[in-house]
Amino acid sequence: MSTAEADDAGAPPAGRGAETVDSYGAAAVDSVAGGGPATTVADLGEEALLAAFTPLLPQAARVLVPSGDDSAVVAAPDGRYCVSTDVLVQGEHFRTDWSTARDVGARAAAQNLADIAAMGARPTALVVSLVLPRTTSVAWVQDLARGFADACAGTDAGVVGGDLSVGDRVVIAVTVHGDLDGRRPVRRSGARPGDIVVHCGTLGRSAAGLALLQAGLDGRSDGWDDAVAGAHAGARGDAGGDGVTINNDGAAAAAQCLRIYRAPEPPLAAGPALADAGATAMMDVSDGLLRDADRIARASGVVVEIADPDGDPEAGLTHDLAALAPVAGLLRPDAVAARDLARAWVLTGGEDHGLLATLPPSAVERLPEGSRVIGAVRARRVGEPAAVLIGGRVPERLGWDHFHA
Amino acid sequence: MSTAEADDAGAPPAGRGAETVDSYGAAAVDSVAGGGPATTVADLGEEALLAAFTPLLPQAARVLVPSGDDSAVVAAPDGRYCVSTDVLVQGEHFRTDWSTARDVGARAAAQNLADIAAMGARPTALVVSLVLPRTTSVAWVQDLARGFADACAGTDAGVVGGDLSVGDRVVIAVTVHGDLDGRRPVRRSGARPGDIVVHCGTLGRSAAGLALLQAGLDGRSDGWDDAVAGAHAGARGDAGGDGVTINNDGAAAAAQCLRIYRAPEPPLAAGPALADAGATAMMDVSDGLLRDADRIARASGVVVEIADPDGDPEAGLTHDLAALAPVAGLLRPDAVAARDLARAWVLTGGEDHGLLATLPPSAVERLPEGSRVIGAVRARRVGEPAAVLIGGRVPERLGWDHFHA
Repeated sequence: MSTAEADDAGAPPAGRGAETVDSYGAAAVDSVAGGGPATTVADLGEEALLAAFTPLLPQAARVLVPSGDDSAVVAAPDGRYCVSTDVLVQGEHFRTDWSTARDVGARAAAQNLADIAAMGARPTALVVSLVLPRTTSVAWVQDLARGFADACAGTDAGVVGGDLSVGDRVVIAVTVHGDLDGRRPVRRSGARPGDIVVHCGTLGRSAAGLALLQAGLDGRSDGWDDAVAGAHAGARGDAGGDGVTINNDGAAAAAQCLRIYRAPEPPLAAGPALADAGATAMMDVSDGLLRDADRIARASGVVVEIADPDGDPEAGLTHDLAALAPVAGLLRPDAVAARDLARAWVLTGGEDHGLLATLPPSAVERLPEGSRVIGAVRARRVGEPAAVLIGGRVPERLGWDHFHA
Repeated sequence: MSTAEADDAGAPPAGRGAETVDSYGAAAVDSVAGGGPATTVADLGEEALLAAFTPLLPQAARVLVPSGDDSAVVAAPDGRYCVSTDVLVQGEHFRTDWSTARDVGARAAAQNLADIAAMGARPTALVVSLVLPRTTSVAWVQDLARGFADACAGTDAGVVGGDLSVGDRVVIAVTVHGDLDGRRPVRRSGARPGDIVVHCGTLGRSAAGLALLQAGLDGRSDGWDDAVAGAHAGARGDAGGDGVTINNDGAAAAAQCLRIYRAPEPPLAAGPALADAGATAMMDVSDGLLRDADRIARASGVVVEIADPDGDPEAGLTHDLAALAPVAGLLRPDAVAARDLARAWVLTGGEDHGLLATLPPSAVERLPEGSRVIGAVRARRVGEPAAVLIGGRVPERLGWDHFHA
């Protein structure tokens, strides 16, 4: 973070133009953060900025040496730790006009935490590198920290260190850690013929939320927030805006999609629970159900059969399809086209970060809440590639590479 | 990394505009990377790019589950791990016309590895998030990976995961981990009256190198490379350019400064060695000797006295000052001004990432190579603040905030 001094003095362009700290708490903080809502990070300077937002970050339960030294020290009682990293770039992964800072912080944390859950581990500690434009408001950074706290609520995980720099666009690089508590890590390569395929968490909501925003439907100007509030209170009626009419079920579903696009809600506790139930392979669905199921199939050398929700009313995805159909109806007046769009969201939409797992059939009695059986694993036939099938067929498209709402 | 498909199809601006992978090896790589030296990352696409540079990354000795799953799993035999993160932003921390990609990779890794050494730990694993402009050449990314390998050479550390995205400027966010091997972590707060103050590694070279580059002296156009080669061969003579005359000693010193600015060479093995020698406090010098010594003083509640190299020919910093004087002479014809500049580099120049430690006096027999005693710790007198002193006096300036070459 460039301080006011550095700016005033014409800091060198590539030397210490951006002052950094080893960890969020590395600099001694003597001054109290202040300033009004329009105060920028450049106004405040590094030390006061740190004082303004680090108290809002979630605390880690298992940190032995907290932020303030060159490294944090975190307990790894298992004798191993899981580690994963994800970076979010303004304009690429989020837009500040579509998502609040709190949404962005929650999303950055949640998609990282999901990578830990997907190994069957329990998240413990995050470190966060932030690149911020000098004009970023301090309030935005504070809300970002609150979003991290939102996503870590109910877990032992917290932010144990970080780094700050300036740049043209916001970049949020998160590294997350987890403890396996003695469990075998659940990899992508362990799916076995005969296993059931389970998904836990939401599917397709993030893609639907993005499609709504791209169509200019943000839920706020359209009055859905009110509609949802009304629905929650048990009221009945229609709410609409900009020519869009939506009933309360559709409003609630659309509002959920926007919420999950802005800040996904991965079922973190289900990761260890699925591992304990005997999961043979697992990953979080970040690039679409079919694409990620295909990755498990290829890593495991098996065929992963997903039951087609269009052909089988008992298929595990039928409810997802039904829930998204009214949302798709907002964008496609034709019922068949809407159904196709909802199907695409469910099968190929990414970034809900639910958990996709394979387990022995006997595990069906021990599945965590929110799980549904969506298919089965079988051996490859002679000459057949390891791949995902939907309704017994090779999918026309797997995921985001070719997905356009 | 946005694939060619995403570009062709007009990817949404803030949804999946940038495709990412959970880890460098997450995507199955079926194609072999190709293309000429001008091939860009957008030309190649994500999977081929991964295939082109991940084999060049350093491998970690203690990884249990490598890149390719949602998380890597790393051994933590100590039952704890150290973790730290540092981010580098193009134009803020490096310039591609001043540093090669290999320099930048080595620097990104080295400054992170130093944070582990400074705790008395041994580096084990790194994860790297890369934000790359679409126009970045594949060769540049390959050289970046080679730089990581350079910095990790001689250690057990390697890159166990990462993430890719696109953006306007290169951003390199590194998270580093280390194992304490049963040692007590050496914090900043443990310095005790009576301790000696030791520095191990180079000081002021990075600041001097930056100052040379800012003055347009890059060592290449000035023929220092030849001069250094000549000096190494035992030849005598002068080499100069752009009106700068420099003897071989000066040329060698200037070349060293440029090299260390571009890719610092922290004494990684000295971290555990200093811890084993009884270090009571330690940190790596990233923001200048006096500023970082002041942090130890304040965290420990003591006074850290650094012996003034100008007043005491036996002071530990005298050699540093003598080595940098001819380099400063390139920028300040006046001998007194040159001496002042060299002094500023030694006392307040950051980013060499040497190790600053306090130890009991008896440890002087067990110091690792490259260490020199540069001062002593004493108790505060009545009313005296915990702070650093140089030659018994409060320093005029501590470090980079007010340092301008």
